Amino acid sequence: MVRIAPISESLPAFLASRNYSQIAVLVDEQTKKHCYPRVKNLLPKHRLIQIRSGETQKHLGTAGEIWKALTDAGFDRHGLLLNLGGGVIGDMGGFCAATYKRGIDFVQLPTTLLSQVDASVGGKLGIDFEGLKNHIGVFRIPDAVLIDAGFLATLPFRELRSGFAEVIKHCLIADASKWEEIRNKEWEEQNWEDLISHSVAIKEKITESDPTEKGLRKILNFGHTLGHAIETHFLEDPKKRLLHGEAIAAGMITEAWLSFKRGWLTEEELLQLEEFLFTTYGKADIRPEDFEAIVALTAQDKKNRGKEIRFSLLKGIGTCVFDIPVTKKEMTEALQYYIG
Amino acid sequence: MVRIAPISESLPAFLASRNYSQIAVLVDEQTKKHCYPRVKNLLPKHRLIQIRSGETQKHLGTAGEIWKALTDAGFDRHGLLLNLGGGVIGDMGGFCAATYKRGIDFVQLPTTLLSQVDASVGGKLGIDFEGLKNHIGVFRIPDAVLIDAGFLATLPFRELRSGFAEVIKHCLIADASKWEEIRNKEWEEQNWEDLISHSVAIKEKITESDPTEKGLRKILNFGHTLGHAIETHFLEDPKKRLLHGEAIAAGMITEAWLSFKRGWLTEEELLQLEEFLFTTYGKADIRPEDFEAIVALTAQDKKNRGKEIRFSLLKGIGTCVFDIPVTKKEMTEALQYYIG
Repeated sequence: MVRIAPISESLPAFLASRNYSQIAVLVDEQTKKHCYPRVKNLLPKHRLIQIRSGETQKHLGTAGEIWKALTDAGFDRHGLLLNLGGGVIGDMGGFCAATYKRGIDFVQLPTTLLSQVDASVGGKLGIDFEGLKNHIGVFRIPDAVLIDAGFLATLPFRELRSGFAEVIKHCLIADASKWEEIRNKEWEEQNWEDLISHSVAIKEKITESDPTEKGLRKILNFGHTLGHAIETHFLEDPKKRLLHGEAIAAGMITEAWLSFKRGWLTEEELLQLEEFLFTTYGKADIRPEDFEAIVALTAQDKKNRGKEIRFSLLKGIGTCVFDIPVTKKEMTEALQYYIG
Repeated sequence: MVRIAPISESLPAFLASRNYSQIAVLVDEQTKKHCYPRVKNLLPKHRLIQIRSGETQKHLGTAGEIWKALTDAGFDRHGLLLNLGGGVIGDMGGFCAATYKRGIDFVQLPTTLLSQVDASVGGKLGIDFEGLKNHIGVFRIPDAVLIDAGFLATLPFRELRSGFAEVIKHCLIADASKWEEIRNKEWEEQNWEDLISHSVAIKEKITESDPTEKGLRKILNFGHTLGHAIETHFLEDPKKRLLHGEAIAAGMITEAWLSFKRGWLTEEELLQLEEFLFTTYGKADIRPEDFEAIVALTAQDKKNRGKEIRFSLLKGIGTCVFDIPVTKKEMTEALQYYIG
């Protein structure tokens, strides 16, 4: 159940419909400061579990801290975990809840645009492992996703722009007219509440038809095969580290070029797409010496089968096809096209 | 899908029906030596993953080793993990498979009586955490459970007897006539193939009607609330450590007494049960100074709600009811009755 409404309405209504023995709220130092004050007084007696912020914290050690905090608090199977934060908090808190005593209820309270339009919907949960993103995890639909666009006011510009990449992706894979609408607007003109509803509706529809990613759901990975690899490649470099959406923007350009090469996008469509993405995100500092490592990282993508790397590619704007084999040579060419 | 047949038939038939990109077999040093030789030649090219045997290895560190081995082998989502061993291998291998890249296929090849009649059926997977049994885990039904009674020949007597406790439990909670049959037979007369089929049928029926233990499934926990607590209490003491079934035998006696106290078992039924279990298992060395710690450990049982400890208790032989609140005082009295 995804509800887009002020949290002061949606959270008390949800709690009134259930009967939990204990409640805990998972935060990081950022959401404790900026978001928790809006949540605190809506809850009965509860426990606060705090972890350090950032993708680099999304590992087994932090999951252990969350499991330990739930254990120390004497949580039984009828407890509730509220995940207040962005994708890291939601993915990891959800994974910990889904595996604590083989699963307790959890509610996502996404506070970033990225988690509101993407991570909180669809039930993908997990942690990074050995430098691989979301390598350990499960699929489980949260007991509720309560989205409040009011939290976006607490967000730095770069974070908001990062989330916008998933909004763009949803338009490109499923709604050509919405793509026309957003690409012809200035940044300040975008209507976030409307875009959240639009993205959530598309993502819910796709994930409900294929919850465990056997087929159609893979189209959500457009921009993510090379995008994830680029993100992972720069993860350990503080100067060049990219936010998820920034890496996905680069991924969408390179993968749009792969579509263009197959004759599935016109040159005009490719240029429009790349103009909008370069204007919004600038160009990531990828160099020829990075190509080999980035291409190698695509082999760890969870969509692959055997040694073949498969992509989700646009077939015209608003349509996406999946399981398209792409060679390492083509990937290198796509990266070369990107850096120009 | 549970199949009881020689593995030389069931395993090739299963593999022929699927198309896996990679196969790995999880073993410990015991099953590598005693069981793997019977499996090895039935498989195409595969990788062996070896962990150390024993319940004390069932922790996050070992899970990390398994995840790492799958990662290093380049396993994608279309790989298969075969768990060749007892409950620890099955629970932990299953958990690792269910969480690797959000879930790959796995097949249980249980080699102990305990895992054949209990752990391999019903989809409970997990690891111990902070000394608490199966504290982190998920529910997922294996892609197949292939049971070969031939493996029992490799088992020490104490291990076989441990598994028998779950067979006894299934009779006590669901089949009074089978209980009469087994309790009137000598150890040497028991027909293991028949008892495995009987136990698996009962467990499958119960778990299929309630996969995530919201209700009826709890009756499978008869003997396990105090039994698990007794097992955990002695886990760190090498001299007094009990096998699972040995602890459950003590749990069944103490919990049968709780039923008797409620007027749900006659004195004759209690004495018959107790005579058979003491004859088979002897008496565990529990002392009055252990009572408080054992009772405290029941509070960590996953079936509880809030502070109340709830039991599954017999209501006559062959019938079991669940969610029965039991006070700490009663538990202490039950333990006192046990030690006599």
